[in-house]
Amino acid sequence: METFLYEHTVQYYETDKMDCVHHSNYIRWFEEARTFLLDKLGFGYFKMEENGVMSPVLRVEAEYKTMARYGDTAQIEVSADNYTGTRITFVYDIRARLPELCAALGKRIIVLSERMVGRCP
Amino acid sequence: METFLYEHTVQYYETDKMDCVHHSNYIRWFEEARTFLLDKLGFGYFKMEENGVMSPVLRVEAEYKTMARYGDTAQIEVSADNYTGTRITFVYDIRARLPELCAALGKRIIVLSERMVGRCP
Amino acid sequence: METFLYEHTVQYYETDKMDCVHHSNYIRWFEEARTFLLDKLGFGYFKMEENGVMSPVLRVEAEYKTMARYGDTAQIEVSADNYTGTRITFVYDIRARLPELCAALGKRIIVLSERMVGRCP
Amino acid sequence: METFLYEHTVQYYETDKMDCVHHSNYIRWFEEARTFLLDKLGFGYFKMEENGVMSPVLRVEAEYKTMARYGDTAQIEVSADNYTGTRITFVYDIRARLPELCAALGKRIIVLSERMVGRCP
Repeated sequence: METFLYEHTVQYYETDKMDCVHHSNYIRWFEEARTFLLDKLGFGYFKMEENGVMSPVLRVEAEYKTMARYGDTAQIEVSADNYTGTRITFVYDIRARLPELCAALGKRIIVLSERMVGRCP
Repeated sequence: METFLYEHTVQYYETDKMDCVHHSNYIRWFEEARTFLLDKLGFGYFKMEENGVMSPVLRVEAEYKTMARYGDTAQIEVSADNYTGTRITFVYDIRARLPELCAALGKRIIVLSERMVGRCP
Repeated sequence: METFLYEHTVQYYETDKMDCVHHSNYIRWFEEARTFLLDKLGFGYFKMEENGVMSPVLRVEAEYKTMARYGDTAQIEVSADNYTGTRITFVYDIRARLPELCAALGKRIIVLSERMVGRCP
Repeated sequence: METFLYEHTVQYYETDKMDCVHHSNYIRWFEEARTFLLDKLGFGYFKMEENGVMSPVLRVEAEYKTMARYGDTAQIEVSADNYTGTRITFVYDIRARLPELCAALGKRIIVLSERMVGRCP
């Protein structure tokens, strides 16, 4: 399974008063990385739409090992996995570059995974 | 011009690392308050949609006198003003309840205004 | 385990071009409901902060059975579960009121769950 | 006054049910472009923070001529203008690349401007 690397520069508006990126925003980065992967594989949004393919997200799972902070460029490894014909799972691995960690948590690596479905009508 | 009062409880995800509500979120509160006003006046979204009325925002102006913080319930006074037949201006006044102010700014009252257009095709 | 009901009115800015609420926003509604529950139980944010309690989210799981739409008022049932002394799990059940469903998915009920940690330093 | 070009790829989560980018998100793109400009000029956030410089936004003005859509890469021209010693104005010009326009509005070019203050304590 091929893995793609997508980079996201943390924006000020993505932080919260805990001084880290708000946990809901990683779910949005998943989407950015998934779009990037699908484009690279020739299954961009508009091509899928033309073919009548909808791709609602069915399930999200995320484990927060630490949080990214303002000034970080998050590196997101994304791959597609476990394609069943009607469902496809995407797996993500987010790492932040800067050595500073959010005080609340001890480990460096953020690992997140998400599952979504692509359905053909 | 009748004024309506709409209340918005500040959410954690609306704050940023400056410990205040991120300035982009007030633009969203405008929309909440405008929707509230239009509902009260019997011009709710679905009624307008049925009548083919689109209401894209044409112009936004906001002055930030201070910032709301987590724990505040923002009180938003909203009124419709200056209706020209194709355009309507909404005026907003946002006040936060708590005495704590964001350190960066000195005054208590936030005043914001926004203009939008409602067009009949 | 006591269950609390929190209501969230869907906002226009929470929708996406699929005409439903973007899936990342439910993660934010979890936070609203959790805050509401903790307030009701006398463990509001500022009280916890005074006691040095941080509550970073460690894990999120969400299953999307359908999507809420503009015009809905989402009803969120929230309860705290499985408290281990350092970790606490919150469970959510989101239901939308309106009969209209997002075309992409067939079932009515949205069930989502999230886990978070409250740590005492 | 030197002008910088910053590009922002429109994300799915930035769209709303009108099939365009929600108008509040441009305010966030302003911030991205301003950060980019300040970095290029050697006044990045962390350098300013070290020097005790806070930069709360005091005023935002935006004119929406049309809306960007999913699939667009927005090109944002940003320049700093009218520096008074305590206040600085940033001017933005956002253009979308794709020929498709949001149905509701007729013109091609989006022009937006924002004013912010950088204060030295």
